[in-house]
Amino acid sequence: MNNNHSDDQLGRARVKSSPELEAYYKELEGLGAGALWTVANDIEPWEPRSYSVPMLWKYDELRDLALKSAELVTPEQAGRRVVYLVNDNRKAVSAAVGWLYTGIQVTKPGESTSAHRHKASALRFIMEGKGGYTVVDGHKITFEVNDFVITPNSTWHEHGVAEDGETCVWQDGLDIPLVNALEANDYAVYDGKQELKYPVNYSVLNYGNSGFYPTHENWNKPYSPLFKFEWKKIYPALVEAAKVNPINAYDGVKMRYSNPITGGHVMQTMGASMQLLPAGFSGKRHRHTGSFVYQVAKGSGYSIIAGKRFDWKTRDIFCVPSWAWHEHHNASDTEDACLFSFNDLPVIESLGLYQEQAD
Amino acid sequence: MNNNHSDDQLGRARVKSSPELEAYYKELEGLGAGALWTVANDIEPWEPRSYSVPMLWKYDELRDLALKSAELVTPEQAGRRVVYLVNDNRKAVSAAVGWLYTGIQVTKPGESTSAHRHKASALRFIMEGKGGYTVVDGHKITFEVNDFVITPNSTWHEHGVAEDGETCVWQDGLDIPLVNALEANDYAVYDGKQELKYPVNYSVLNYGNSGFYPTHENWNKPYSPLFKFEWKKIYPALVEAAKVNPINAYDGVKMRYSNPITGGHVMQTMGASMQLLPAGFSGKRHRHTGSFVYQVAKGSGYSIIAGKRFDWKTRDIFCVPSWAWHEHHNASDTEDACLFSFNDLPVIESLGLYQEQAD
Amino acid sequence: MNNNHSDDQLGRARVKSSPELEAYYKELEGLGAGALWTVANDIEPWEPRSYSVPMLWKYDELRDLALKSAELVTPEQAGRRVVYLVNDNRKAVSAAVGWLYTGIQVTKPGESTSAHRHKASALRFIMEGKGGYTVVDGHKITFEVNDFVITPNSTWHEHGVAEDGETCVWQDGLDIPLVNALEANDYAVYDGKQELKYPVNYSVLNYGNSGFYPTHENWNKPYSPLFKFEWKKIYPALVEAAKVNPINAYDGVKMRYSNPITGGHVMQTMGASMQLLPAGFSGKRHRHTGSFVYQVAKGSGYSIIAGKRFDWKTRDIFCVPSWAWHEHHNASDTEDACLFSFNDLPVIESLGLYQEQAD
Amino acid sequence: MNNNHSDDQLGRARVKSSPELEAYYKELEGLGAGALWTVANDIEPWEPRSYSVPMLWKYDELRDLALKSAELVTPEQAGRRVVYLVNDNRKAVSAAVGWLYTGIQVTKPGESTSAHRHKASALRFIMEGKGGYTVVDGHKITFEVNDFVITPNSTWHEHGVAEDGETCVWQDGLDIPLVNALEANDYAVYDGKQELKYPVNYSVLNYGNSGFYPTHENWNKPYSPLFKFEWKKIYPALVEAAKVNPINAYDGVKMRYSNPITGGHVMQTMGASMQLLPAGFSGKRHRHTGSFVYQVAKGSGYSIIAGKRFDWKTRDIFCVPSWAWHEHHNASDTEDACLFSFNDLPVIESLGLYQEQAD
Repeated sequence: MNNNHSDDQLGRARVKSSPELEAYYKELEGLGAGALWTVANDIEPWEPRSYSVPMLWKYDELRDLALKSAELVTPEQAGRRVVYLVNDNRKAVSAAVGWLYTGIQVTKPGESTSAHRHKASALRFIMEGKGGYTVVDGHKITFEVNDFVITPNSTWHEHGVAEDGETCVWQDGLDIPLVNALEANDYAVYDGKQELKYPVNYSVLNYGNSGFYPTHENWNKPYSPLFKFEWKKIYPALVEAAKVNPINAYDGVKMRYSNPITGGHVMQTMGASMQLLPAGFSGKRHRHTGSFVYQVAKGSGYSIIAGKRFDWKTRDIFCVPSWAWHEHHNASDTEDACLFSFNDLPVIESLGLYQEQAD
Repeated sequence: MNNNHSDDQLGRARVKSSPELEAYYKELEGLGAGALWTVANDIEPWEPRSYSVPMLWKYDELRDLALKSAELVTPEQAGRRVVYLVNDNRKAVSAAVGWLYTGIQVTKPGESTSAHRHKASALRFIMEGKGGYTVVDGHKITFEVNDFVITPNSTWHEHGVAEDGETCVWQDGLDIPLVNALEANDYAVYDGKQELKYPVNYSVLNYGNSGFYPTHENWNKPYSPLFKFEWKKIYPALVEAAKVNPINAYDGVKMRYSNPITGGHVMQTMGASMQLLPAGFSGKRHRHTGSFVYQVAKGSGYSIIAGKRFDWKTRDIFCVPSWAWHEHHNASDTEDACLFSFNDLPVIESLGLYQEQAD
Repeated sequence: MNNNHSDDQLGRARVKSSPELEAYYKELEGLGAGALWTVANDIEPWEPRSYSVPMLWKYDELRDLALKSAELVTPEQAGRRVVYLVNDNRKAVSAAVGWLYTGIQVTKPGESTSAHRHKASALRFIMEGKGGYTVVDGHKITFEVNDFVITPNSTWHEHGVAEDGETCVWQDGLDIPLVNALEANDYAVYDGKQELKYPVNYSVLNYGNSGFYPTHENWNKPYSPLFKFEWKKIYPALVEAAKVNPINAYDGVKMRYSNPITGGHVMQTMGASMQLLPAGFSGKRHRHTGSFVYQVAKGSGYSIIAGKRFDWKTRDIFCVPSWAWHEHHNASDTEDACLFSFNDLPVIESLGLYQEQAD
Repeated sequence: MNNNHSDDQLGRARVKSSPELEAYYKELEGLGAGALWTVANDIEPWEPRSYSVPMLWKYDELRDLALKSAELVTPEQAGRRVVYLVNDNRKAVSAAVGWLYTGIQVTKPGESTSAHRHKASALRFIMEGKGGYTVVDGHKITFEVNDFVITPNSTWHEHGVAEDGETCVWQDGLDIPLVNALEANDYAVYDGKQELKYPVNYSVLNYGNSGFYPTHENWNKPYSPLFKFEWKKIYPALVEAAKVNPINAYDGVKMRYSNPITGGHVMQTMGASMQLLPAGFSGKRHRHTGSFVYQVAKGSGYSIIAGKRFDWKTRDIFCVPSWAWHEHHNASDTEDACLFSFNDLPVIESLGLYQEQAD
């Protein structure tokens, strides 16, 4: 292998045009064909190439607008009352980065949506409010700020906030653009609301204790039987993990939300992590394939992504495109910072497409 | 679940525009955001939706043009001397259907290419000629007409035809469009030709006997250790299988090229099958997710795809887009017909996106 | 299939002896052979047949004797200072039931053993004391009463009690008889004590939070990365699980200690469970293959095993042989009872030998 | 780790007896208990320890006696007309070596047995005759000399020889002793003969072509879907493999009969291999855990097992106990020799108990 990335070498397409060739190309075109060498260097890049740009969405700017949606439309009209975040270069596919969609959903006390399902998978990361819940295939799951909740592929789901709750805001993450691109999405509406088939938070009570699972179930679905990952457990776990593990030069202390009966990703198409940047952490840069959407769960700092600096604080959302160099910095010398992120690593990994590079 | 596919119902976005909303949308746009309900019904279709159209490429029309490439460019200039087939609706991504690329490669006796590798995976289905070979990660593999050969993701590879051979033509299948879309492709050129690290056709000799494998190897790569599937074994196997199995109403007798140590697909991103349509076979229509490129290995007939009839004979290539209704018919009452096809089912299945529907 | 279990039917050996046959048998014997029909009905029983009898060991009776061992021998002399419990019918193989060994180990404050390892796997269930710990392959793990700790196959291990602790008593469970029977056991002594390669309780801090695991490790060993399962988490989990799950008629609420990254058993040859019998629980009888050793972790009650009643209270140990009918009863109408058990189910299941029958 | 295997060192039991201790032991015994240090060194050997001795059964000596069984008893009387081979040290469990049973079954033209099933698994290696067949769960499988056939755990099975065939002799291999030891065996008789649910040799026609499997079946049983491995394919495969692979110093060219959709063993409890010793091959000695029963499929030679020489020729049967040093020699300088063997490696491997040592 050589490291010369010039297209003017053996092994790359280096055909010079000529009238004869142009005529030939025309003839091919008429038959629904083309000469590979006219596009080869373009479709076979030397390195992974992303179509997205890095972006940051400041919650200070978006919050009021998101809340305003609650005055403008009802859930009944909108289906879901969501402000979605779109990458400047991915508007055609409504993606925040790569093939990942993200949005901010607002639900007022007493509101609830009707149920639906789709081949796209979904996840939620809770930003504000009290009394929020989701119902996934008959499982009601209550949630609090910084909890992480999954809604796997083809499960019936609906959301709401208790009458005595407070307006809830959460981030939705979906692979809608990917599933559309793969020409496999579908959609169905439920007649009304789901019946609760399990006690509230059943999945947490049965699968929320590491290595201690029910013998009466034989879970064989391709996603985590644990539907909620609670911040009240996650943050202390992260703090303790930070004490006993080496601090990674790029990522601080990074733990993966995992399927507790496979150790793998929580769903087939999207994964998620929480990482702690210790006080004063100043990360090195690296890059890897896979697209990432971050939400700042705690603290403030900045990231340099593809050479551009993005300052963030709690609740801000930003993205890192595939193969973009990136580094994270905690702005505080006394407080840790926590970054939630979700990604398409299950896709990238299961198809054998992961690679990374340190600077 | 209801089967009403009207967008004018609860659970779909039904917000009517207003000056106030338009102003709101504008404000969102300025922040890299949008209102989900303005795009929801579009990005969440009721059923899988393909961007490709069905097409057939007649070999009678293409053959001369493909062979002509051998007069117009050398492998040294072109990298690979290939005429690629492109879907009318997928020109932007150089795909024949969905995210699959296919092309017709021509190599003359004595010619050979330099080696390269890429994150895209490749496969070949041999159409004409004698003395052709490929070298994959140090394994030299000779091939004959209707043989099926794989070049997995990131393996070094090069091709050639023996001095005393005859001009070889084969179909290439690659997932270049997919790997580009997933922003993970790369490319490297080898300095010269690979050294042969194994005896010729080593993989066939070690893994070509069903259920009788070497004890001295512990194969742990994510693709088949068997790199070539020979027509001289495949066709008789298919004929025998046709005698003992029920004839499937949609597909006749369909066997899958498989990894002999996992039973799964031969590679992580592309699968392949060979199916025999018995004499007189007139298939029913069905549809499923996943994109397919066919080559007629034997016989003649026609397929009706998305309502359009395509007549085919040996060596013709055609495609079936995701979720398109399709049915196959053998034109002969005395001879069987055989259809080779490759697909993106490993992607569709591993991501939980497969579904099918019979008429 | 018929349900007639008489040996006097077609399909069973029914050859009557004769002088000619006796002579024939003699001839065979001289060649290291025999006639199958002379042993077939014996070696092919109609139903699973255990060689063990049910037994109960009362801790009231054993405790003083076990503690007395601490006066009689030192760990240096004894290797391990353990009183082992042996089935009346399995003395030849030192097994408590089936091929499972169990013993009661006593360690005084300030004592510690030297390290060793063996192909047999081990587990501990803590009965008394404070300040106890084990060191497994460089991981120091502290433990408390009713904690469950594993020492997988071929890991270096040693135990001790802190100087300022209290005499610790724990139950050891090992598959020594099985590994000897499979002719695969071995033993090695470590020169002195192991160096600690990880912070104390590292495995609990990294894998003790369900579905939230480190990204910097790629655990690929065939046993649980979580080495300790703490009663302070297990008991509340069981109580909560009892609220949301159906009460099983045979087992009350039974949860399995599991490998948190596979969902399977904690080790390759031994599994373990904790079950809660609600106040007033009166179980039905059933039977299944697999051998079980129980320890009462909490409460009192009785079990009827193979028709014999065994009354138990906290710290008592009893066994259920393979295929023995058994039922469990909580003696209290106000307090729950908890039964810890370990078993050879990983063996039985991985070899396809599990079956169960309800009355 | 030290390599001193003396029991007189720290880490081994070194307690000297005394009247006080003897009294203590007595007290323990009365409670169904004992002091571990009195048995520890015995039950925790330094190295794997087999209970079997190496043995060879000469077919010249056994053949007449085996055939004579056909005159002495009918299949109806005997259940199965089999002469079994028993290890001098394993008579109590009717095992040829370790926990493996083997026998020689004789069936005359026109004879057939009634069907039965058991939790023990079975395999056959054909020694003589024509027209033999077995029926496994409704699959009729015909066989010839040196074919290898499986009868997995709990499948209904029966055997016979066609009216116009010749007396068939085959070797049976079963794990009866193991399944009895694991207290899990059972037995059931079928009312009469099985109905054939599939065309003859269906499994070979569907799964006998490496890497080309039916799409209409979703095989999910824990054993190979290929029930017969034919010598007419196996021997040429072995000869070809010998040309392209390194000759192993211990085993010549050894190939494993494998499940073609997992690459693993053909059944959950027994595996099998065929190895070719090239002309003039003189193997080195090694040892490993696992018990092996060999049958000479072709040629002649000798093996030195645990220091003892055993001369063998085609059809002889011999065994290698766990951890016994062994080496194989081909007596011919012009002809290759082939050794079939079956073993308990699936058990040893799945339980983490495999180890090997070269001299």
